[in-house]
Amino acid sequence: MRIAIDAMGGDHAPEAVVKGAVQAVEHFRDLSVTLVGDEAKIAPFLKENSRIGILHTTEVITGEEEPVRAVRHKPSASMVLAAKEVKEGRADACISAGNTGALMAAGIFIVGRIRGIERPALAPMLPTLDGKGFLLLDVGANADAKPSHLLQYAYMGSVYAEKVNKIEKPRVGLLNIGTEPKKGNELARKAYELLSEADLHFIGNVEARDLLAGAADVVVADGFTGNMVLKTMEGTAYALFQMLKDVLTGSVKTKIAAGFLKNDLLKLKSKMDYTEYGGAGLFGLKAPVVKAHGSSNDHAIFHAIRQAREMAERRVTETIEKMLVQERF
Amino acid sequence: MRIAIDAMGGDHAPEAVVKGAVQAVEHFRDLSVTLVGDEAKIAPFLKENSRIGILHTTEVITGEEEPVRAVRHKPSASMVLAAKEVKEGRADACISAGNTGALMAAGIFIVGRIRGIERPALAPMLPTLDGKGFLLLDVGANADAKPSHLLQYAYMGSVYAEKVNKIEKPRVGLLNIGTEPKKGNELARKAYELLSEADLHFIGNVEARDLLAGAADVVVADGFTGNMVLKTMEGTAYALFQMLKDVLTGSVKTKIAAGFLKNDLLKLKSKMDYTEYGGAGLFGLKAPVVKAHGSSNDHAIFHAIRQAREMAERRVTETIEKMLVQERF
Repeated sequence: MRIAIDAMGGDHAPEAVVKGAVQAVEHFRDLSVTLVGDEAKIAPFLKENSRIGILHTTEVITGEEEPVRAVRHKPSASMVLAAKEVKEGRADACISAGNTGALMAAGIFIVGRIRGIERPALAPMLPTLDGKGFLLLDVGANADAKPSHLLQYAYMGSVYAEKVNKIEKPRVGLLNIGTEPKKGNELARKAYELLSEADLHFIGNVEARDLLAGAADVVVADGFTGNMVLKTMEGTAYALFQMLKDVLTGSVKTKIAAGFLKNDLLKLKSKMDYTEYGGAGLFGLKAPVVKAHGSSNDHAIFHAIRQAREMAERRVTETIEKMLVQERF
Repeated sequence: MRIAIDAMGGDHAPEAVVKGAVQAVEHFRDLSVTLVGDEAKIAPFLKENSRIGILHTTEVITGEEEPVRAVRHKPSASMVLAAKEVKEGRADACISAGNTGALMAAGIFIVGRIRGIERPALAPMLPTLDGKGFLLLDVGANADAKPSHLLQYAYMGSVYAEKVNKIEKPRVGLLNIGTEPKKGNELARKAYELLSEADLHFIGNVEARDLLAGAADVVVADGFTGNMVLKTMEGTAYALFQMLKDVLTGSVKTKIAAGFLKNDLLKLKSKMDYTEYGGAGLFGLKAPVVKAHGSSNDHAIFHAIRQAREMAERRVTETIEKMLVQERF
């Protein structure tokens, strides 16, 4: 098993990426890693390990670049070369914490779509209060979606939840503004019908306010809605933690209280922490492509690697492909 | 100025509704109120006041009823009679904390739409960290929307923010998944174009994660997206406060700390409290119709009345009507 990693992507690259990769090869004895990026910048953080190789390049795609254009015009960018490692069979999966749109473009143009999948979907694992998490897809690979796309997202998410999260009969929910079957916009109502007839453990509509409580294992939505919900959760949690921080540092009295609470509050914060849950898979491609969070530390990179490794090992892609033939989309 | 209030709507009716109404007539000397509902149940909470009348009825629409059907089949329901008071000129505005869908149906069928408004919009004021709040519309009067609907929401919201919130040049934002002009789904991209050319202080796309920080005074979205964002904010805040509560009551040590923090945490919670901001206006109707939150206490009812009173006094409906003629939608 070999995974190609864009060593130059993300806010803390290459340090966090290289360190996360070192931890991963130490942890998984069957794992080899190809770090793609500037050898001179990678080397200082690298521990000697026969299962880590470097594919040297100095070209990088930045966060601000227009994705499709960047991938087309920078054929030697670290992210593009990582995707090529997969395409040309030298790696089983690839990972980047860089420009999300560019990674999607590289995934679609270079790794390629599974035949029969109309639209790939970006699928992060998000936290729940019980620590199990849930898969939300799509969070923005495509802003517009048809009902059939949502059905495909559901199948792909269900396969992933079963194979990687080891959930026997993953509960699939449709993100909607009410739980009743006829609720929602036209897209949601039509998708509900398709999902009801599908060979899935479809539990019906789930509301955004119940997601953190673990309403479903897999939640499907069009990319616009999924992205909106993801960012609202992030924004609300961030604002509340900021307000709490202001309270705790506001006076001598509250600072003393803060000292008493520190460990428990850190635990609370880590419950909401994305890093434990891995990155976002780009589902519907011919091989596992994982987008790690832009602000990933080494711990988050380790988990993104774990995730890509399990997707490859448990043949998620191949299972989706096989399922497509059976379901005859 | 007379406002008709459905005394039987909401989780704490009629007590909270009657008490809120009493506070409002004591506060606003120009205000008269008609409480619509069961006289025997209203009386215990009523203080003698010449500016409060009761319109007696025992019929009630419950929260579970199918809205359109309920309004049609219960012509003497408290909510329906309150709307008729407005329709027939005996009241300037009406309020209910009951079934949202039924109030929308009553508003549209009985109070009636402003000519030229294609779709009414449900528009709550939501909290921001600086305590000023922002108006979000639509949060679910219509799940599907066209670009022209979003433009009308923007005009209506801008008039409201100017007249009621007294903001001179309200900043109008389009809820989107990125700030760049070309971002989003087809609806958002087309609405962006319309809004750019409109006679509004349009500040472009705003992201859901920036709403609590006060990114705009008026935020427009289709009802599906608006409702989704509203419920995600509520759900995330609720889950985090629950987690915090668990931490604070978890051990002797944390309970002591909680004692130190109590006042500050209550302040924090009240910042996120909807009751200060009033109810949700149903915009696009011939008179002010306000939906108070289902769990409204007397304080929230007071603010919903304040809001309806200001909408009537400052002629929000008439201004929207006039604007429609000028803009020739």
